[in-house]
Amino acid sequence: MRRPFAMTPRRELHTREMDEEHLQSLKVNTQRLMEDIHYTSRWGTGEKWGEKPTETGVSRLALSDADKEARDWFIHATEALGCHVTIDEMGNIFAVRPGVKNDKPPTFVGSHLDTQPSGGRYDGILGVCAGVEMLKVLADNWVETEYPVGVVNWTNEEGARFPISMMSSGVWAGYIPLDTAHNAKEVHPGTTTMGAELKRIGYMGKMPCSHESMPMAAHFELHIEQGPLLEMSNKKIGVVTGVQAYKWLQVTVKGRETHTGTTDLKSRADALLTAAKMILHSHKLATANNALASTGILHLKPGSTNTVPGEVTFTLDIRAQSDEAVARMEHLINHDFHKIASGENVGGLNPGCPLDALNTGCTPGLPCTVTIKEFFKSPATNFNPLCIDAVNRAAHSVLGPDSQDLVMEMTSGAGHDSVYTNKRCPTSMIFVPCREGVSHNPAEFCKDEDCALGAQVLLQSVLRFDRMREVQRVTWKQEPYTLEDVHASENARTWEMDR
Amino acid sequence: MRRPFAMTPRRELHTREMDEEHLQSLKVNTQRLMEDIHYTSRWGTGEKWGEKPTETGVSRLALSDADKEARDWFIHATEALGCHVTIDEMGNIFAVRPGVKNDKPPTFVGSHLDTQPSGGRYDGILGVCAGVEMLKVLADNWVETEYPVGVVNWTNEEGARFPISMMSSGVWAGYIPLDTAHNAKEVHPGTTTMGAELKRIGYMGKMPCSHESMPMAAHFELHIEQGPLLEMSNKKIGVVTGVQAYKWLQVTVKGRETHTGTTDLKSRADALLTAAKMILHSHKLATANNALASTGILHLKPGSTNTVPGEVTFTLDIRAQSDEAVARMEHLINHDFHKIASGENVGGLNPGCPLDALNTGCTPGLPCTVTIKEFFKSPATNFNPLCIDAVNRAAHSVLGPDSQDLVMEMTSGAGHDSVYTNKRCPTSMIFVPCREGVSHNPAEFCKDEDCALGAQVLLQSVLRFDRMREVQRVTWKQEPYTLEDVHASENARTWEMDR
Repeated sequence: MRRPFAMTPRRELHTREMDEEHLQSLKVNTQRLMEDIHYTSRWGTGEKWGEKPTETGVSRLALSDADKEARDWFIHATEALGCHVTIDEMGNIFAVRPGVKNDKPPTFVGSHLDTQPSGGRYDGILGVCAGVEMLKVLADNWVETEYPVGVVNWTNEEGARFPISMMSSGVWAGYIPLDTAHNAKEVHPGTTTMGAELKRIGYMGKMPCSHESMPMAAHFELHIEQGPLLEMSNKKIGVVTGVQAYKWLQVTVKGRETHTGTTDLKSRADALLTAAKMILHSHKLATANNALASTGILHLKPGSTNTVPGEVTFTLDIRAQSDEAVARMEHLINHDFHKIASGENVGGLNPGCPLDALNTGCTPGLPCTVTIKEFFKSPATNFNPLCIDAVNRAAHSVLGPDSQDLVMEMTSGAGHDSVYTNKRCPTSMIFVPCREGVSHNPAEFCKDEDCALGAQVLLQSVLRFDRMREVQRVTWKQEPYTLEDVHASENARTWEMDR
Repeated sequence: MRRPFAMTPRRELHTREMDEEHLQSLKVNTQRLMEDIHYTSRWGTGEKWGEKPTETGVSRLALSDADKEARDWFIHATEALGCHVTIDEMGNIFAVRPGVKNDKPPTFVGSHLDTQPSGGRYDGILGVCAGVEMLKVLADNWVETEYPVGVVNWTNEEGARFPISMMSSGVWAGYIPLDTAHNAKEVHPGTTTMGAELKRIGYMGKMPCSHESMPMAAHFELHIEQGPLLEMSNKKIGVVTGVQAYKWLQVTVKGRETHTGTTDLKSRADALLTAAKMILHSHKLATANNALASTGILHLKPGSTNTVPGEVTFTLDIRAQSDEAVARMEHLINHDFHKIASGENVGGLNPGCPLDALNTGCTPGLPCTVTIKEFFKSPATNFNPLCIDAVNRAAHSVLGPDSQDLVMEMTSGAGHDSVYTNKRCPTSMIFVPCREGVSHNPAEFCKDEDCALGAQVLLQSVLRFDRMREVQRVTWKQEPYTLEDVHASENARTWEMDR
């Protein structure tokens, strides 16, 4: 399999022959990149937040009709650039551009085209479009990589429609069973499943969804930071060294449905009032423990103005730097939520003052019960040192003399498909700032120049990694990786000199 | 128009000829009454809560297919008992049994056959079935009333599907515009309206929905208490003298949708955390002000585990004995909710301790905004003294020598159709105890003997009122009645002696 332009071999530029000057001369086209980002937002156009035509969000839930159209575009665009496209049984789309040596796995760039129900134009989309832009730069410049390079669109990264985030990279990595994923019910209205929707839109591929069927030499992901740190510290590129730990809990409070007008406060087992105390308390626990706690979904029954809710179910997303810190939060939540449900006066963050407690000023009511169920967890992730280094070098190279002031190492607050790829292949990520750190919001915004800088660092990281694979042989083993070796380093100095 | 059995005039018993012994000899048939209650629960059978076949709730939203079937049964049952049935343009069904003098309005018994989404077998249904049982007792005993008596099934009393409670008695009384009612959208999924559903199930009658088209001499309503007071004090009958004031507010909190993993606590405008504080605070305000505050519906956007909610809308049902107390609660809620939204530390019910406040232990975040909209109100209601007296006398007569220990006067915590009929005709209500005061719950339960006692008091109240209309002439004017006179009292002593 060869790309059409490979028919004129004398004009090809091989990455192994490139020097630093050559590498730096390969530039992404900012306008072309932004056109792809804005063009694809027609599929699932979201809420308008500004005057310009590009100032709307994107609402493109996984496997919706809009998602199908964005997928079709992705396949069309990458095939036109000479890629071979494969779809696996989770609908992951792998576009691979052949290199010189095609008996080894490709170096991948990946992210996702699905969005939150009221998401923006950049989350996931920037990473995929930057991958497509990379393919265009390689084609324009007749670059022949040593090994194949690929771009992957992962299915249902958001977990917004089918409530397991990073679902299909999780299946690929062997951490989420295929059946669990196929049988996942959509959050609302809950009448269909992931598997049924994959079939409906024609994206249930034949290839098994597995790192064995589609191995990767590495996975690089460009993403908006989705937080305020880069912007607040005037940095341009975040070199992501890992992802914080998190866990998703489903909390169900059961009380008693009663009439709001005839049931005095002390005769109530009000499931919503109890849930409100829990949500407030989880925030206080997060504050006290340098963690995050967030409730994004809440359903109650029966849902009538004049009936005290008898049952409330809500999600609790807890995050912290380490697995231990998340475990500690979970322990406190379990301990305190049962007390809150039974009517005990939890608080005591200031033991000297008994009034610092949830129930102060409340009427004691009848007890509720609570059950807490974990439905997703993502342990703290440490990205691969070689990939982190490749990104670091690319960033400094792209940003030039002032790069020390413009690049920072950081951990990601959010999970990404890179969390799962990191379990099976060397992985790292590149962050670019987004306005006020806002994401999962129609008004999510990343400057054109920052999108392009990120894409440039991504391109450079992939090319450097491709060169590294050729000139180096490195053996490593890092938990929880099962991938045990990549080409061993033979000449670290050659690579050093590239900087 | 005459009932068929009126063809054998010599066996008729006229109410004006009855003495106390006659009156007391007219007994409801407990088994027959309970059979009607349990038989009709087949339409919209709800959640099972016990082992017996009758131990399920009822889920019969207004104008659903199940409601249509219950309506059909009501018409069939009352026509078979010699009633003339009329349906108005709100689907209210009036079944009228002729009396001797049919040029005057009927004395009505009324309640409703619709239920909450997960309601019980008694709320509303007991009142309608007791009306049907009254018609059966009158028929069995060949009783001829002086004036016509009727039974009315009011449409959408619950306001659970179309969110205006007591909607159709409200239209009848001229307090809710017909258009507002017809255009009311169902709560969920919101794709149809009251008017469309009335047409769909064939219950949009031709008669205008108005107290002028269907005048009432009086309206008596039997209902389960839906609260714990009768049971707690070992009473059998509550003579209801009025209904507490209440107001329904819709509260909308707007914050900012952001990613749960990447947005630190101080960079959030968390609409749900803010709403949780408001719900807890409304409960504290109710506790401090001897009022009730309840949230029964809460929706949030966008509804994803890893997105901080940007918008939350919830209902707030506030109730108190007087209109002034409700107004005071509303003032406090308005005042404090705006502070809570902006991030101020509201609390201070114990001014000596600054820790007694919602925000103690919280991370200060970004401000949210709040809007509060009233969507329903029901001022405090005082029932008609003559009707209250009729119920009082009937209750003491039915309960016999120990009646002083078994009857209590009380106000209703819930609104009922009687609130609106009271604006246009003399009205009062009869309460019977229900288990643990639980209502709006599948496990709502009223003992057979208590259902029958209530029905017996209802029957006696109607007969006593019918006699009263004959022997008395009373003129009164009571705000906010516009009905200015009923037959004036001429001989109060005659009526006294009936007891």
